[in-house]
Amino acid sequence: MTPDSLIRGLAHVGIAVRSLEEAIPRWTESLGFRHVDTITLDSMGLKIAFLEAGGTEIELLEPIRSDSTIAKFLEKRGEGIHHLSFHVRDIEVALARAAAAGLELIDRTPREGSHGTKIAFVHPRSMGGVLVEFCERRHE
Amino acid sequence: MTPDSLIRGLAHVGIAVRSLEEAIPRWTESLGFRHVDTITLDSMGLKIAFLEAGGTEIELLEPIRSDSTIAKFLEKRGEGIHHLSFHVRDIEVALARAAAAGLELIDRTPREGSHGTKIAFVHPRSMGGVLVEFCERRHE
Repeated sequence: MTPDSLIRGLAHVGIAVRSLEEAIPRWTESLGFRHVDTITLDSMGLKIAFLEAGGTEIELLEPIRSDSTIAKFLEKRGEGIHHLSFHVRDIEVALARAAAAGLELIDRTPREGSHGTKIAFVHPRSMGGVLVEFCERRHE
Repeated sequence: MTPDSLIRGLAHVGIAVRSLEEAIPRWTESLGFRHVDTITLDSMGLKIAFLEAGGTEIELLEPIRSDSTIAKFLEKRGEGIHHLSFHVRDIEVALARAAAAGLELIDRTPREGSHGTKIAFVHPRSMGGVLVEFCERRHE
């Protein structure tokens, strides 16, 4: 990691699915991922299943409301990879630096993520079609 | 990692781009990724730029021929995430187990990847729209 890298590694890959019930076995039974937990994140209209293998985390995202971002994504693009989430040390610093570098931000201020994280999204228009999330872990 | 997990962590995220020259600065200057190397992989009709930050690797994929897989992807979907590549210990075993689990394989036998790796793809139809690559590192 270079001293001035914003990014401290991948937090997770977010994947949009129509049904967790159908999606989870693809990753667990077929590829051997471990299903760690499933939660409901009301603020984002989502159920999220957390999967892990070899230190890599995947979040399967199922919409629970038709007006949620993931419901709209599924309607437009179908199932597939939705975003890449990267760990940052300080999300306020990350957002300020990303804005200064000319990236278009979806979130100018962080919002609540799962497990007490703070998250914010960079617009895919700025990143060649890739939706990038910054994720600051809860400080214990 | 569970004893029977096929997957030994993320190898890289493959991202389809129209131009490496335009794409590399988005990741290096804006987010602080390190540009490690760029190679041409004639067998797949690609130029590949390897980027790294915090132990996470990204491959930016630019087509050099209009009949390459990435050229067709760009035409159909535009720029964006193309595949997730996961390390496996033994790619022949991984392919046999994936087939036995009912996954549809694009490659029944491994092909040559970059840096002496052996790679093979699982069809996104089997994985909810996610193109999964198995990647076996060269054994020194």
